[in-house]
Amino acid sequence: MIFITRRERFNAAHRLFKTEYTDEQNMMVFGKCSNPNWHGHNYELFVTLKGEIDPETGFLVNLKALSKLIREKIIQKIDHKNINLEVDFMKDRMASTENLSIAVWEELVTPISQLGATLHCVKICESENNFVEYYG
Amino acid sequence: MIFITRRERFNAAHRLFKTEYTDEQNMMVFGKCSNPNWHGHNYELFVTLKGEIDPETGFLVNLKALSKLIREKIIQKIDHKNINLEVDFMKDRMASTENLSIAVWEELVTPISQLGATLHCVKICESENNFVEYYG
Amino acid sequence: MIFITRRERFNAAHRLFKTEYTDEQNMMVFGKCSNPNWHGHNYELFVTLKGEIDPETGFLVNLKALSKLIREKIIQKIDHKNINLEVDFMKDRMASTENLSIAVWEELVTPISQLGATLHCVKICESENNFVEYYG
Amino acid sequence: MIFITRRERFNAAHRLFKTEYTDEQNMMVFGKCSNPNWHGHNYELFVTLKGEIDPETGFLVNLKALSKLIREKIIQKIDHKNINLEVDFMKDRMASTENLSIAVWEELVTPISQLGATLHCVKICESENNFVEYYG
Amino acid sequence: MIFITRRERFNAAHRLFKTEYTDEQNMMVFGKCSNPNWHGHNYELFVTLKGEIDPETGFLVNLKALSKLIREKIIQKIDHKNINLEVDFMKDRMASTENLSIAVWEELVTPISQLGATLHCVKICESENNFVEYYG
Amino acid sequence: MIFITRRERFNAAHRLFKTEYTDEQNMMVFGKCSNPNWHGHNYELFVTLKGEIDPETGFLVNLKALSKLIREKIIQKIDHKNINLEVDFMKDRMASTENLSIAVWEELVTPISQLGATLHCVKICESENNFVEYYG
Repeated sequence: MIFITRRERFNAAHRLFKTEYTDEQNMMVFGKCSNPNWHGHNYELFVTLKGEIDPETGFLVNLKALSKLIREKIIQKIDHKNINLEVDFMKDRMASTENLSIAVWEELVTPISQLGATLHCVKICESENNFVEYYG
Repeated sequence: MIFITRRERFNAAHRLFKTEYTDEQNMMVFGKCSNPNWHGHNYELFVTLKGEIDPETGFLVNLKALSKLIREKIIQKIDHKNINLEVDFMKDRMASTENLSIAVWEELVTPISQLGATLHCVKICESENNFVEYYG
Repeated sequence: MIFITRRERFNAAHRLFKTEYTDEQNMMVFGKCSNPNWHGHNYELFVTLKGEIDPETGFLVNLKALSKLIREKIIQKIDHKNINLEVDFMKDRMASTENLSIAVWEELVTPISQLGATLHCVKICESENNFVEYYG
Repeated sequence: MIFITRRERFNAAHRLFKTEYTDEQNMMVFGKCSNPNWHGHNYELFVTLKGEIDPETGFLVNLKALSKLIREKIIQKIDHKNINLEVDFMKDRMASTENLSIAVWEELVTPISQLGATLHCVKICESENNFVEYYG
Repeated sequence: MIFITRRERFNAAHRLFKTEYTDEQNMMVFGKCSNPNWHGHNYELFVTLKGEIDPETGFLVNLKALSKLIREKIIQKIDHKNINLEVDFMKDRMASTENLSIAVWEELVTPISQLGATLHCVKICESENNFVEYYG
Repeated sequence: MIFITRRERFNAAHRLFKTEYTDEQNMMVFGKCSNPNWHGHNYELFVTLKGEIDPETGFLVNLKALSKLIREKIIQKIDHKNINLEVDFMKDRMASTENLSIAVWEELVTPISQLGATLHCVKICESENNFVEYYG
C-alpha cells in the first residue's frame, strides 16, 4: 500500500452566513467572515490516494491523469468563482472549509476509483494557519 | 542606511473589470478575473522601510509600532473586505495588484515618515506565482 | 468525522541538559543544544482537532475560539520565554520537543473537549528539518 | 508513543522508461518524464520514527544520530547521482517516487530499529505539487 | 514605475564540467556537480518587469501573456530536459545557474519589450539555499 | 555583473535591553523581547555577492567556498549560542537584527573580497514576518 498526493490550487470568494440570520446575527456568529460583500482566499487542495503500485509503470496512478481529473471535477468549477453562488457541488451547503472538504471528497471518490486507486484524504488549506482534512 | 521589512496578511475579494465594458468585453480583456460574482486571494503585504539605526535602541523603528500602523491604515480596512466596493483608498481605481500597491504606498508614506523612517518599498503577493513591487 | 488544524507560533529559548551532569557530560550527550547560555527557536505549533461538523455553522469548532484558547493556554506562557525556567507546564521536564509536545497536549486536551471537539494531534516544528507529533 | 520526523534533501537525475519499450512507447506512457537525456529534481525526504521517549534524555532518538544514519544509508548514495544508473538500492526498479519511497524504507527499517525506534513513514516530495508516503 | 514578477518552474538535468578536463579534474573543480551521469533540480524562475501601469487595464502587462511568453521561450525548451545537451540557448555555455540566468535574460529581453514593458531581473533558484539574479 | 545568494541558518538566544535601564524600563521600551531569561529564534541569513562570471568555471564564486566561509566566520560563532553573551562580533552592540546584519557584513566583507567577488547584501530573517537588509 502506497499513498500519493497531488496539490492543486484555486482562488475563490466566499461568505459564511445563514439566510435566516440578520447581518448583525451573522456578524455575531461568523465575525468578519460573514461580510455581505464577500472576501476570498488562495485555497490549496491536497488530494491523497492509496493503493498498490502498478508493476508495469511503477506508479500508483498516472499523476497527469490525476491532475486532469481534479482540474475537471473541482478546479474548473471553483477557481475564480464565488463558492456560495456558483459552485454546483456546494449548493445549499454553508461555505466553510469543513463542508468544502466533504463536497470535494464526494465529487472525487468515484472518478478516482476509476483511475484504479482509492481516495484516502482531501485536505484544504484556507490560509497558512488553517486547514481541514477529511478521510471519508 | 538599513532596510527593515514587515509582513502582514489580508484576505479579500476583488474583480477586474471596467463599468464601460459589457461582461463579455470584460471577460475578453480580464479573463476569469472579471467574474461578476467576485473571487479572492490571501494577499501578503511586505512593507520595507529605510533609514538610520537609533543608537539608543538598535532599531530602525519599533516593529510593534510599524505593525500597528500597517494594521490601522491598511489591514483593518481591507481584510475580509471587497476591494472594489469597500476599501476607501481603492475607490475609483481598477482593483489590480499594481494599483493596490500604489494605493498602499500613498496611505503609508506619511505615517511611516512620522515613525522616523522612510518608506522604501511596498510589495504585494497575490499568489505564490505573482507579485508586485512599488518604490514610489 | 472531520479534522481541523490551527497553526500558532512562538519564539523561545531553551537548553537540553541534566543537572546531574557536568557541562562536559551534557555536551557529550546533548551537543551544542546543551549550551549553558541557552539558544532558541521559532517554534510552529499545529493543533489538530477531530469531531462532527455542527450543521448550524458548518464548523467543527469556531477557529477564533480555538486560536484564543491556544494563545491563552500555551502561547502566552511560552512566547518570548525560557522554556526551562519560566514555563509552568514544562517544570521538571527535559525541554525536548518530544516532551514539549506531550505537555502541550496535556494543557489542551480538556479545554478543547469543552469546545465540543476532540484533540487529535499536537505537532511542533523546531526547525524546517525537525518536527514531533503526539496523538495522546 | 511519540513520532519524530527528520527532513533531508537530495538532488538527482532520473528517467521513467521501460527498456522493452521504444522511445515513442515510453513517451506515450511516461510523457516528458521519459526523456532519454534525463531530467532531475530537488527531492525532499521526510523520515518519521515512532516509539517511547527515553526518560534519561527526553528524546525518542538522538536527531544527530538519525540524520547521520539517513545521510550514510541514503543521501550519500543518491545526492547528485543518476537514480537509474548509480543508486544500488534502486537497481532493477522503475525510478518512480513510489518505488523510491519503498526502497528508502527497506534501506532504513533495520538500522533505525537499531537506534531504538520504529520506522513509521517515508515521505518523498518530488516537487511542490507531488509527494508519496509509504508506511511499510 | 511599477515592478511585477511572475514565477515559473522547470525540472531539468545538468552537469558542470569542462570537456578539456578529465573526470578527475572536473571532480576537483566542480565536485559532485560534475557527475558524468548527471543530476538535476527543480528550478524556480522569477521574471521581473518594470514600466508604467496601463490606465485602461490597471496592469503593467497582462500576466497571462507574460506567463505564455515565458513558457514558450523558456519552459517548453528546458522543462524535463538536459540543460547541457538539449537546450538551444545554453549551447556552448557552462551549465551554471549564473550562465543560465544570463541566457534566459537574452531570450526574454526582446519579446518582453514587445509586451510593452522592460525586463528588469531574471532570478533563478537552484535550491532553497542558492539563487542567482541578473539585471542585464 | 551577476548576483549570487547563499542561505545559511542558525538558532540562537538573545535579549533586547540596556544595562542602564531597570527591567521595568526595558519592558516598556523593548516589550517581551527584553525578557531577562532570554528567548530565541531560527535565523535565516542570506548573503548576496556581486561580480563578474569566471569564464573558466561559469561561476561568480564557488558556492562551496562561500558556504564554508560563512560557516567559519559566522555560523560556528553564533549557532546555538547566546548573541548577547557569546558572539565576539556582537560584543557591546544591542542584539537587534539591524545591528546583527551590520556586524555580519563587517565580518564578511573582507574575506568575500578575497574570494574574488564583492559583498552586496546581508539579509537576516528573524521570523516569517520580519527581516532586515544591509548593503554596506
